[in-house]
Amino acid sequence: MLNAVSPELEDRLRAMLGPEGLPADAANFLQEPRGRWQGRGLVVAPSTTEEVAEVVRLCADFRVGIIPYGGGTGLVGGQITETGPAPVILSLHRMSAIRATYPRENAMVVEAGAVLADIQQAAGRVERLFPLSLASEGSARIGGLLATNAGGLNVIRYGTARAQCLGLEVVMADGTVWNGLSRLRKDNTGYDLRDLMIGAEGTLGIITAATLKLMPRPAEVTTALLSVQDPSAALDLLALAGAQLGETITAFELIHRQGFDFLAEAEIAHVRPLDPLPEWCVLVEIGLGQGQDAGGALEALFLAAQEAGLSKDGTIAQSVAQTQALWAVRENIPAANRAIGAVSSHDISLPLSAIPDFIARAPGRLAGIGDFRINCFGHLGDGNLHYNVFPRPGRSRADHDHQRAAVKRAVHDLTHEMGGSVSAEHGVGRLKVEDLERYADPVKLATMRALKDALDPLGILNPGAVLRQQ
Amino acid sequence: MLNAVSPELEDRLRAMLGPEGLPADAANFLQEPRGRWQGRGLVVAPSTTEEVAEVVRLCADFRVGIIPYGGGTGLVGGQITETGPAPVILSLHRMSAIRATYPRENAMVVEAGAVLADIQQAAGRVERLFPLSLASEGSARIGGLLATNAGGLNVIRYGTARAQCLGLEVVMADGTVWNGLSRLRKDNTGYDLRDLMIGAEGTLGIITAATLKLMPRPAEVTTALLSVQDPSAALDLLALAGAQLGETITAFELIHRQGFDFLAEAEIAHVRPLDPLPEWCVLVEIGLGQGQDAGGALEALFLAAQEAGLSKDGTIAQSVAQTQALWAVRENIPAANRAIGAVSSHDISLPLSAIPDFIARAPGRLAGIGDFRINCFGHLGDGNLHYNVFPRPGRSRADHDHQRAAVKRAVHDLTHEMGGSVSAEHGVGRLKVEDLERYADPVKLATMRALKDALDPLGILNPGAVLRQQ
Repeated sequence: MLNAVSPELEDRLRAMLGPEGLPADAANFLQEPRGRWQGRGLVVAPSTTEEVAEVVRLCADFRVGIIPYGGGTGLVGGQITETGPAPVILSLHRMSAIRATYPRENAMVVEAGAVLADIQQAAGRVERLFPLSLASEGSARIGGLLATNAGGLNVIRYGTARAQCLGLEVVMADGTVWNGLSRLRKDNTGYDLRDLMIGAEGTLGIITAATLKLMPRPAEVTTALLSVQDPSAALDLLALAGAQLGETITAFELIHRQGFDFLAEAEIAHVRPLDPLPEWCVLVEIGLGQGQDAGGALEALFLAAQEAGLSKDGTIAQSVAQTQALWAVRENIPAANRAIGAVSSHDISLPLSAIPDFIARAPGRLAGIGDFRINCFGHLGDGNLHYNVFPRPGRSRADHDHQRAAVKRAVHDLTHEMGGSVSAEHGVGRLKVEDLERYADPVKLATMRALKDALDPLGILNPGAVLRQQ
Repeated sequence: MLNAVSPELEDRLRAMLGPEGLPADAANFLQEPRGRWQGRGLVVAPSTTEEVAEVVRLCADFRVGIIPYGGGTGLVGGQITETGPAPVILSLHRMSAIRATYPRENAMVVEAGAVLADIQQAAGRVERLFPLSLASEGSARIGGLLATNAGGLNVIRYGTARAQCLGLEVVMADGTVWNGLSRLRKDNTGYDLRDLMIGAEGTLGIITAATLKLMPRPAEVTTALLSVQDPSAALDLLALAGAQLGETITAFELIHRQGFDFLAEAEIAHVRPLDPLPEWCVLVEIGLGQGQDAGGALEALFLAAQEAGLSKDGTIAQSVAQTQALWAVRENIPAANRAIGAVSSHDISLPLSAIPDFIARAPGRLAGIGDFRINCFGHLGDGNLHYNVFPRPGRSRADHDHQRAAVKRAVHDLTHEMGGSVSAEHGVGRLKVEDLERYADPVKLATMRALKDALDPLGILNPGAVLRQQ
């Protein structure tokens, strides 16, 4: 069993880290974005990898849990705990340096506390792209983004955070430091600790720095919004786009008319680029090399889609302003959802070809529970749906409090039955520990437990996240 | 300590697997491609995952080691042992089915014994590409390719085997079966067991099936051979190609004139596309989408490279025959090398920007050992060099037997000093266990040992590979 932070430990940490090492604004670290939980614990902010290691060694001595803390933007409670002995919250925000940039290698070494938007800008300054991109990029920090294997908008082309990382520096549970800040593209010398740490949500080690993979910036980028008959046609369009355009597709986002209706209901300004507004449409973006005709390529795609009976109407952005207006639709849907107030939100993924069937069957599963509106949208190219359930007009989220658990269970059960995942990109945190226990392959679960026990035998690293605290 | 296979265990295995389960041609499984080691052990060939699991459980009971065996094409002795108690050699060749193909999802589920060329052809039949490609693709099996995280020719665009796998089915050391044959593109429910198993060379589990990621086939493919002033200019050309063409570069292979000279010396027919033959050149291949002008794009690249002073001469293939002739140069260099007989071969990788310096410094390290010829070539885009050391004309590999260890050590030491890896794509096997102990980060090594002990506490899985048997 772990102990709560004691005055003695606090004194030792203060002596070790100095006054700056115990932030005055500690309360900020005990909130989370949706206001669901109120955190607890002692916030510390080391400024070097060696200080992180010292904190870990001290906490191991005191048998006190450590919650690694990035930008605090996680949605599954991985960065916050309401239960158990009060832990140390170890924020990486003072370690935010970009240590080195290697444009010739398309690589960059950054500290865990670097904010994603700052990394994107630093890549831009050397005419490169760091592709990871998501709504919270202005505050999310790379250590947390890697620890949770963040996804976001252009996974279809560039993969999740895991695919964008070449190496890591990690403080292990015993306070030793694994220096794995490799800049190598190929290295088959032993087990893949990097990918094991990525997505482990700080339960196997604390990421203190990372080597990131940069990409060339696409020279010719164009965006289109195309109507589709239904989700099945959207999948056929995706296959057609792949055949015509290969891996140059940067985004392929499915949008339901409900998204537009919610934007209107929430009074968020937006364009209605197609008239009449179809039930379903997809936002497609491609990025080609220099001198290539991205607009022409999207036009050819649309014509082929029309011919194949997949799309009847569409618009191709002719200016930066039009591109931004199309993207604003997609990017503002989450804000509209928040304004309406979801009964339950679900970050699920499915085998691509199962998606039409899922979308057809899910309402039937919910009908027995209550009367809802659905806003289903997401990263179709990744099989990742945000399947969100809302009250009817005139009713509120609170009216459905008693049904929330049943709604979640129904959506997750169907997802699991169809070979899907109940956490596509947000992770497990503390919110989905029970889901993991319910749905994960039992051999996988047992293996995860064995790995956790092997790498963190005292159980001090992010206790209670991903795996139940024992 | 492990036991050798006993007559009793052999009887039990025969009873379990039937006559077909103990191959008559067992001797073939005890050879390896370069004839360096002579294997030993009892060869068994289960035909189902459940049979694999039963073999593992039985071997666990008898405390007998198991060497998982794919196509037998590995170059580091991962599939063969000369020392220790005689193990069970578990060949997956009877499990070679393509279980299912999902063209709409760009996915395919195959058994571990499926041969790479067969997988490539099956993907082709549904107009998709399985990009993994290497010299031994006619006999290498996917289980071994994943277990060793194989690289090959177009890693620059598609990544190593790890990047081309969505899910695995694995028999664990206790004979339980992890069903991780996911077809999901995004799934953040727990630790990344998939990437841990990939590259673990059968020491943490036995891969019995895999879900593979298929890709669209590039519609317009063109190849060029361009001279470069030196390796530094080759790197600048790579950056230029990235800026102009993005991720459409399928291959970027560095070739030294020595390669052409060896082809001549070995009397292997080949073209000499540039006259005079430059000291260094690069083989570039790009693959674009439909209706795009790949030849024009390579011409634009060459013109820009000329303008920037990076390349003076070049040829762009105008036909399939010309493309094949250019590729034959690159692909026949290993055969020429074998004909000459290397003193020592090295599969190394370096941070890209360190490559010119490495190529400049390595001959100095070797000069103190003996008088050699160097053939340095490889996948420049991946920072992966095959840095091979040969006798002078009139001398043979055998004349340098006494210097081999020193040559290897000198090349590996310099690689390590410059932040490189002594096994870029071939793995550790049994050949490089000592190298791993010498060069690996000690915390990484300790962590690997902890993982091995956690997942294979009896040490029965591929004993002595990757980590020294304890």
